[in-house]
Amino acid sequence: SAALRGRIFAVWHQMAQRYGFQEYDGPPLESLDLYKAKSGDEIVAQLYNFVDKGGREVALRPEMTPTLARMAAAAERHYKKPLKWYSIPQLFRYERQQKGRLREHFQFNADIIGEGSTSADAELIALLIDTLRAFGLTAQDFVVRLSSRRAWEEFYHSGGGDPDRAYAFYQAVDKMGREPEEVTAAKLKELGFSLDRVREFIAQGQPTEELEEILGDLESRGLQEYVTVDYSIIRGLAYYTGPVYEAFDRKGEFRAIAGGGRYDNLLKVISRGKVDLPAAGFGMGDVVLTELLKARGLSPSVAPELDAFVLVEEERFRKESVRLVQKLREAGLRTDYALGPGKSDRQYKYALARGARFTIRATQEGETGPLRFLVKEVAKRTEEAVDPEAVVSYVQSRLSVSD
Amino acid sequence: SAALRGRIFAVWHQMAQRYGFQEYDGPPLESLDLYKAKSGDEIVAQLYNFVDKGGREVALRPEMTPTLARMAAAAERHYKKPLKWYSIPQLFRYERQQKGRLREHFQFNADIIGEGSTSADAELIALLIDTLRAFGLTAQDFVVRLSSRRAWEEFYHSGGGDPDRAYAFYQAVDKMGREPEEVTAAKLKELGFSLDRVREFIAQGQPTEELEEILGDLESRGLQEYVTVDYSIIRGLAYYTGPVYEAFDRKGEFRAIAGGGRYDNLLKVISRGKVDLPAAGFGMGDVVLTELLKARGLSPSVAPELDAFVLVEEERFRKESVRLVQKLREAGLRTDYALGPGKSDRQYKYALARGARFTIRATQEGETGPLRFLVKEVAKRTEEAVDPEAVVSYVQSRLSVSD
Repeated sequence: SAALRGRIFAVWHQMAQRYGFQEYDGPPLESLDLYKAKSGDEIVAQLYNFVDKGGREVALRPEMTPTLARMAAAAERHYKKPLKWYSIPQLFRYERQQKGRLREHFQFNADIIGEGSTSADAELIALLIDTLRAFGLTAQDFVVRLSSRRAWEEFYHSGGGDPDRAYAFYQAVDKMGREPEEVTAAKLKELGFSLDRVREFIAQGQPTEELEEILGDLESRGLQEYVTVDYSIIRGLAYYTGPVYEAFDRKGEFRAIAGGGRYDNLLKVISRGKVDLPAAGFGMGDVVLTELLKARGLSPSVAPELDAFVLVEEERFRKESVRLVQKLREAGLRTDYALGPGKSDRQYKYALARGARFTIRATQEGETGPLRFLVKEVAKRTEEAVDPEAVVSYVQSRLSVSD
Repeated sequence: SAALRGRIFAVWHQMAQRYGFQEYDGPPLESLDLYKAKSGDEIVAQLYNFVDKGGREVALRPEMTPTLARMAAAAERHYKKPLKWYSIPQLFRYERQQKGRLREHFQFNADIIGEGSTSADAELIALLIDTLRAFGLTAQDFVVRLSSRRAWEEFYHSGGGDPDRAYAFYQAVDKMGREPEEVTAAKLKELGFSLDRVREFIAQGQPTEELEEILGDLESRGLQEYVTVDYSIIRGLAYYTGPVYEAFDRKGEFRAIAGGGRYDNLLKVISRGKVDLPAAGFGMGDVVLTELLKARGLSPSVAPELDAFVLVEEERFRKESVRLVQKLREAGLRTDYALGPGKSDRQYKYALARGARFTIRATQEGETGPLRFLVKEVAKRTEEAVDPEAVVSYVQSRLSVSD
């Protein structure tokens, strides 16, 4: 639901800001070339692309990194380095099933630009871990699998791989386990590698010096139990150059929760050589995260939506009721009221359905007695008569007691 | 900038929730039919539309109301009425200049569905006013001009206007003042009306009974000084049926800050008769609002971004520094630090540029003395040596004093 999504967004904003990242946003439409050039054919087939009224080939963004690289390359001279930027963009995919449906989701993206040391990789992984922890997930729930695209690159080249076909190799490794064994074996064989040799490389699992540094940094932060070296991770996209990682639930029920890595050449390629800055970042989508939180009973709890709901049982009380509503809101209380005339119990049910903590209704002895408000604390079923000018402070004091 | 936009969004969220509105969001792409059918030719010419890979005619949404009406008609049976829904969508327009550029902006939308009384109109106008007040704008800065599409409808029909051409008439009135007088006069004449007669209707300015009710309701809330009846407002879109309004800056420097009205037939039309619910709502964009806030010196103040920045002047202190960073963040403090090795004064300048309130750096007497942290309050230029385990509480206590 939109309310749950709002809560996930709130945690993402909070953690990014706590880590000193600054928010940016970019356009949802980009030139098709931005993706064609950089991400290989695989991603172009998944793009929701079209020719626009101006005759340009464009696409709804399927990921944020190319947009970020383009924007950072254009704007970097206005900022001291490193840039620590985050965004929560809506992303789009073309679904070949169902007559080419548009699939959309939101993704938390955090990137560091202009810092080549492994401190930046560790900082990003720490943010990823702390964000998942902020949702109540523990080291029993998830793990970050850390690998090295650079180590894979060396493996491929020292094994005599054709430099022009390296991307096909990474793709084949990335799909291992999701494709039948014989499909992977055939692809690897065609590239000059045996499945056994690739499996052996994954199994030896020796962290490179770079990965050792990252592990050491995360240990200083007390986060070592959330990360493990695992060379089965390679990341599907073409532009990674160094450490890469994906976060998974420990039980293996879901797809990756998040993934990222270093992409030191992307800004240079996108800016056509004008800007050459190292960069690294990760993305965390809302879909798998929501599924995982639900499965672990951790859906960010839906707080009561309304502090107060003002019933209008008789239309002669409407003016005073609306006056009170305004006062409650000006005091910062989330307040709603009965907009139209309606039966008292229907209004009350509506207030309960909206999660109101207090209901308030006007009352008067006879036609001429003083107007007072009956304030009811829904959870306690107690109701008390309060003078109009005392209602706001009465509700405020009760709210702070029960918090 | 994205940071300023984030602050505007925060105020929008806060005020909508304080008024008891619930957040929803919809897809950025809609079928072209959704707009073609309902909003007249005018808006279709401004659409960023295209044929997608599945052969469908689609458009990036130029406004949220048709999407909202579609979603509410589909989902209303799951909710008690009235629905009070809000959203902050990105909206898109096709710009004929510059070879058909895509124009995008964000808009705060609030709508009430299922309440036909003027209470709903007043509630929406009150939210609009209180939202602008939350940015620091006063009754000297802006006014809501309230009018009635229904009164215009009666004027048109009692004047013998052709029912099939009513929309052309509303469009002509909407453009008065933005088009040369003779253009408006010619359009009106063609529809059977003289410019003088239309001006006279605007000048008489008698509020309808509906408008009287809305004004009375707003007076109960103490908001009467923010609203005035002004029949020059008619709203350009086809679907309005009752009270309509726009908010303007008093000096008349800017385009409308916000606008809305009642659209009681739209759900029925969009659901092809299945759902018939009254509805009303408004939209407030980020562009004019940002210009106005800047012109009045009211840009939501940019709070310091970082509570603390940890310098790493010597690499031998990195481990302990990173450990401290983690502790500060776990205490909820927005913290950044020197990711890579670098000169002390360059690190310090970076910390200042990022708006850090405290800088922290490790220090040690000789090679074997106890490690301590020098904590500097940037605004006061005072620096104090603090034991590692005491830094978090030291910074927290100083922050609460200076807040």
